[in-house]
Amino acid sequence: MRYKITIEYDGTNTLGWQRQIDGPSIQEYIEKALLPLSNNQHIPVQGAGRTDCGVHALAQVAHFDIQRDIADWKLRDALNFHLREQEAPVVILNVEQVSSDFNARFSAQGRGYIYRILNRRSPAIIEKNRVWWVPVELNIEAMKSGGRFLLGKHDFSSFRAAACQAKSPIKTLDKLEIYRQKDEIIFEVEAKSFLHHQVRNIVGTLKLVGDGSITPQKVKEILEAKNRKEAGPTAPACGLYLSKVWY
Amino acid sequence: MRYKITIEYDGTNTLGWQRQIDGPSIQEYIEKALLPLSNNQHIPVQGAGRTDCGVHALAQVAHFDIQRDIADWKLRDALNFHLREQEAPVVILNVEQVSSDFNARFSAQGRGYIYRILNRRSPAIIEKNRVWWVPVELNIEAMKSGGRFLLGKHDFSSFRAAACQAKSPIKTLDKLEIYRQKDEIIFEVEAKSFLHHQVRNIVGTLKLVGDGSITPQKVKEILEAKNRKEAGPTAPACGLYLSKVWY
Repeated sequence: MRYKITIEYDGTNTLGWQRQIDGPSIQEYIEKALLPLSNNQHIPVQGAGRTDCGVHALAQVAHFDIQRDIADWKLRDALNFHLREQEAPVVILNVEQVSSDFNARFSAQGRGYIYRILNRRSPAIIEKNRVWWVPVELNIEAMKSGGRFLLGKHDFSSFRAAACQAKSPIKTLDKLEIYRQKDEIIFEVEAKSFLHHQVRNIVGTLKLVGDGSITPQKVKEILEAKNRKEAGPTAPACGLYLSKVWY
Repeated sequence: MRYKITIEYDGTNTLGWQRQIDGPSIQEYIEKALLPLSNNQHIPVQGAGRTDCGVHALAQVAHFDIQRDIADWKLRDALNFHLREQEAPVVILNVEQVSSDFNARFSAQGRGYIYRILNRRSPAIIEKNRVWWVPVELNIEAMKSGGRFLLGKHDFSSFRAAACQAKSPIKTLDKLEIYRQKDEIIFEVEAKSFLHHQVRNIVGTLKLVGDGSITPQKVKEILEAKNRKEAGPTAPACGLYLSKVWY
């Protein structure tokens, strides 16, 4: 039986989605929670996206196979019970039995991320580890203007981490919305798939537009340079959320 | 010089607003942050409301007197610097010089609180310690109906903590709004002042209406009984936020 799960997690004190030898990962927390349900057999869990250390998820998707036919809600509650036992910063929002050709990673039609900047003079307290605190006032209209150059199909080499394993730097950015919500600036981005650090490098560059370090037009030049050194620094992980995956 | 400050804090690992001998309090964090600005003289800080252990604030207000004439923004940044040194879960949002007859507690014309319930099957992760997790589905219309009996001027003895020091149990509830926001149920309440635990006892009682344990009409009987034993349990502190104080 193959199950699709939707997962919320707090990436703060983890090494990210992927199983690591040297510390806790979201994948490992879930695989450990599956052990009591599978006679202690290790069941690999495949995620839609490998979020980095410190990155959160509102709705990561994964799948796994288990030799049991359990009601979806029972499996969700059992997994959450075993996640709580581990004090894991992870919770299963939804479980759904799917056909065996469903693959959380390869069947995904698109992925959405949210990035949150807290833009005020005083540091984050209630939203600590949930936002990137930027104390200088950002010009949201300038950031929107700069962001428009990134929409559509481009070679995103300037926004790609050195460690990126994607075969091609060409991606299609389907959505880049930027808006203010109280004292936060929210970025909503969508694409079929992303390069490693692509969202954080876009946000880090648009922040430079917002604080006046570069012009909106400069974003076009950075994109066309196809050179990571031209773009801004990578925005911190704590502001980033994998917010949806669709199939 | 008298200064009015607006404060955000995370009450989770504190004993609440008021200075205590046996653990950290918000008042103490701020008074410690003032020491380097007052030649190490202890300056008492008076808050508008004494929030309990675990209760948060989005905009608590307080005042203090200091023998220095500092620009508002410099004082805010200096206080935030010294709060960070302490790793205090507290930040100053705003500083404003006021006349010497301003009193954060006694000049307040009203106070507003927000209470957040996370109403879904899966426990809170991103909003851990920020909401009360209620896994059973709550009927928001029933809660609104029950809440209407509480609006206006009443003897709120049924919703008053035993430890409450107010002279009279008669208070006027000016606002009680309940609405859904994604998978949360938000309560917004306003009054000139509140009894100890009044908001949490109201929420704890309306939760019983929402889950069908009692009828909306029963809230009227509970109010009229003027007996704390008739009302529901006190809702947890972690969902409560002092959200505004006006003058």
